[in-house]
Amino acid sequence: MENLFYQPDLSQGALFLTPEESKHCLKVLRKKQGDTITLTDGAGYFYEALITEATISQCRFSIQRKWQEQLKKYHIHLAISPTKNPDRIEWMVEKCVEIGIDQITFLSCKNTERKSIKSDRMLKVALSAMKQSVRATLPVLSPLTSFQDFIKTDYSETAKFIAYVDMENPTHLMSLAKPGKHYLVLVGPEGDFTQQELNAALHKGFTKISLGNHRLRTETAGLAACLMLNLVNT
Amino acid sequence: MENLFYQPDLSQGALFLTPEESKHCLKVLRKKQGDTITLTDGAGYFYEALITEATISQCRFSIQRKWQEQLKKYHIHLAISPTKNPDRIEWMVEKCVEIGIDQITFLSCKNTERKSIKSDRMLKVALSAMKQSVRATLPVLSPLTSFQDFIKTDYSETAKFIAYVDMENPTHLMSLAKPGKHYLVLVGPEGDFTQQELNAALHKGFTKISLGNHRLRTETAGLAACLMLNLVNT
Repeated sequence: MENLFYQPDLSQGALFLTPEESKHCLKVLRKKQGDTITLTDGAGYFYEALITEATISQCRFSIQRKWQEQLKKYHIHLAISPTKNPDRIEWMVEKCVEIGIDQITFLSCKNTERKSIKSDRMLKVALSAMKQSVRATLPVLSPLTSFQDFIKTDYSETAKFIAYVDMENPTHLMSLAKPGKHYLVLVGPEGDFTQQELNAALHKGFTKISLGNHRLRTETAGLAACLMLNLVNT
Repeated sequence: MENLFYQPDLSQGALFLTPEESKHCLKVLRKKQGDTITLTDGAGYFYEALITEATISQCRFSIQRKWQEQLKKYHIHLAISPTKNPDRIEWMVEKCVEIGIDQITFLSCKNTERKSIKSDRMLKVALSAMKQSVRATLPVLSPLTSFQDFIKTDYSETAKFIAYVDMENPTHLMSLAKPGKHYLVLVGPEGDFTQQELNAALHKGFTKISLGNHRLRTETAGLAACLMLNLVNT
């Protein structure tokens, strides 16, 4: 499949591409009336469609076929502090979506320097990565949440891990994570979690994990955890 | 360890920091005469040093202690096409160094759009990542080499893999790679390797591998392969 187009309102009967997607489809890819394109609604479905109208600004189509993306037997939720440099967390979002992730929550911790997230920008990055990797499910991107509020929530259904760098050398995520679970992994800011934050997580039933013997940047740790959990389920 | 300084000529008796490192050490970190700093020569050794002179532009020191970085039982060589967008391959270099890699060769393939590499920029990225992850060995960054020339070389000592996306669904790298080997992984450009390039590699004893069920960007594939080979040896 060469190109994947996105129309979130497909199931509500929106049989056209957004102006941006239309331009890409008609101007860049030179698609014409009668050509076939593949779309996704970002909600788990792919659609094969026939272009019925191709004007300058709008590309209308009719659905020929609809099929569901293969269901995964596991669920990955990464809760991570934004990085001081916004580009770093943005590429992590792109890479996690490519590799496979279901939810990303941005955590505002004691040592988090960046106190805001460009949600629209993040969504754009995630969308483009979803299309790039030919996926039909757009991950949930949850807004910036304070660590205290986040940790209050009860995640009884999930295998809960917290990445923390200390002298005790905790067990590696690869040996702790079992296949087919709902995972939740916490990754701290550049200054890492505070001892208080760590204790709060441990108190809530999170298990301290290692991602390797070397110090990883926040965004590298998030990506590594995401890839490892996918590998555990390979 | 908070900060790691780099002086490649330490073993040749260069007991001073470069102007740039001096400024960082004295101006930013406010280190003074009599303070202790940690250095690496990028060739496998760490050094604990005492600052003996701290002028505006130069920081001189005397070695107190020298120790070798823990030796790895495996060796990872990634040969990858540069990406059209130079930032993408640069961050891959940064991430691979953080996670652990021994050599990166840039491959000029039939479908490689970028025909040049900013070697000095790459070295800078690798150096900063080495210091960030507190490593003492700077990976070898080999210049841009044509695929044909690269494949001519005999890599009889290494476990040789080529990442290639096709319908045959090759075996996953994680199940093929055995621990403690010298690995060589080839990753192609945005347009992937040509059938000819693939055949040349297979003819040379490379094994076709999969990195997962989803299409990954060039730089994501390179990073994923690097992390997987480190995990195989965890």
